[in-house]
Amino acid sequence: MKKELLADYFNEKRGGIEMLGNMSVTDFLEKTASNDPVPGGGSIAALSAATAAALTEMVANLTIGKKKYVEMEEEMKEVAKTLLAAREELIRDIDKDADSYDQVMQAFKLPKETEEEIDERKNAIQEATKKAALVPLEVAKKAFGLMEAIEMIVVKGNQNAVTDGAVAAMMARTAVLSALYNVKINLGSIKDAAFVEKVSGEVTELETKIEVIEKQILSKVQL
Amino acid sequence: MKKELLADYFNEKRGGIEMLGNMSVTDFLEKTASNDPVPGGGSIAALSAATAAALTEMVANLTIGKKKYVEMEEEMKEVAKTLLAAREELIRDIDKDADSYDQVMQAFKLPKETEEEIDERKNAIQEATKKAALVPLEVAKKAFGLMEAIEMIVVKGNQNAVTDGAVAAMMARTAVLSALYNVKINLGSIKDAAFVEKVSGEVTELETKIEVIEKQILSKVQL
Repeated sequence: MKKELLADYFNEKRGGIEMLGNMSVTDFLEKTASNDPVPGGGSIAALSAATAAALTEMVANLTIGKKKYVEMEEEMKEVAKTLLAAREELIRDIDKDADSYDQVMQAFKLPKETEEEIDERKNAIQEATKKAALVPLEVAKKAFGLMEAIEMIVVKGNQNAVTDGAVAAMMARTAVLSALYNVKINLGSIKDAAFVEKVSGEVTELETKIEVIEKQILSKVQL
Repeated sequence: MKKELLADYFNEKRGGIEMLGNMSVTDFLEKTASNDPVPGGGSIAALSAATAAALTEMVANLTIGKKKYVEMEEEMKEVAKTLLAAREELIRDIDKDADSYDQVMQAFKLPKETEEEIDERKNAIQEATKKAALVPLEVAKKAFGLMEAIEMIVVKGNQNAVTDGAVAAMMARTAVLSALYNVKINLGSIKDAAFVEKVSGEVTELETKIEVIEKQILSKVQL
């Protein structure tokens, strides 16, 4: 019951709305700037990760077909394919984050007249908030996962585009940390202690590792 | 003469092309990922800065009209206006960076038959490369300039949106450093030693300061 209700609210609110990825860059930023809380930092984290994937893909594409890099040809083709898939998924995550936020808002609007309703509403809020923590956690992991490809293209890719690899590394780092802020703010409202403990551990590990990896990649950028 | 020639090439190449800011987010990233070097890291730096401006503006807009923050009302309205102007300028810089890169490419295509042509081509390349260094330097300065507003909204703005301020700080930091990579790679091809020295000094100063300011702002984010 609860889930159906949520789904109704949800469809009503976002059913007619354009996918964020289909909006123009200008309109998307206009919508970000407005006093509507979505898209917010979580969606921007996904966008930042998608941008990192795109830039890395570009460096791979600028390496493919170049005589000087013929030995890297197959590796570059393979990584470009993986990056394309990651980019497409991350673009969908721009909406997914906004949707998960909307679902929390809708759960708060559930009726709270009877005791049963109050309980159902509490549960719905908890479930929606867990989802609102897990969506950016997934984005953080995906952005983190880009670092291996970024390091590879910085070292083996077309050196004329090496700064684009550096930019990709920084965009991915910012995507990871931005997504993790959105995990943490949701954890504060979750009562399931085991869930909070498990997710907190993952957050801390990703936060620590990503800063080290970013520095490591940037140290390999030769200008 | 040289400049007119460049302008012709330029109009031919980009005249019929849609403004990058008018493309959908998905198409913009598709174009980034392609084996066309533009848009590249320089345009992404401008986009990242525009995103930071938009998120900061959102926090200001989520503060305006709230009883709890009535004392900040005027300050928030003022900063929102400044941020809107910065965002619009930075969206235009996405194209400006791509254009400056194209102009370098066009200068390389100038005729080099006679000695006069060879000299003119060399000068054109040097001038275009200087511009390709100065455009991202301007973006870096604009992104750096956002940090004051970001710190203000993190401290005084709606605390429910404080993580959006944190994301804005990291997006602006990444914008500054990304733009500076694009300055540095161009400096390597510029023969005017005085120009290189002056710009290098500015780069180093911005690089050092931005990391400190980012950490300072993030330390003020209370979760």
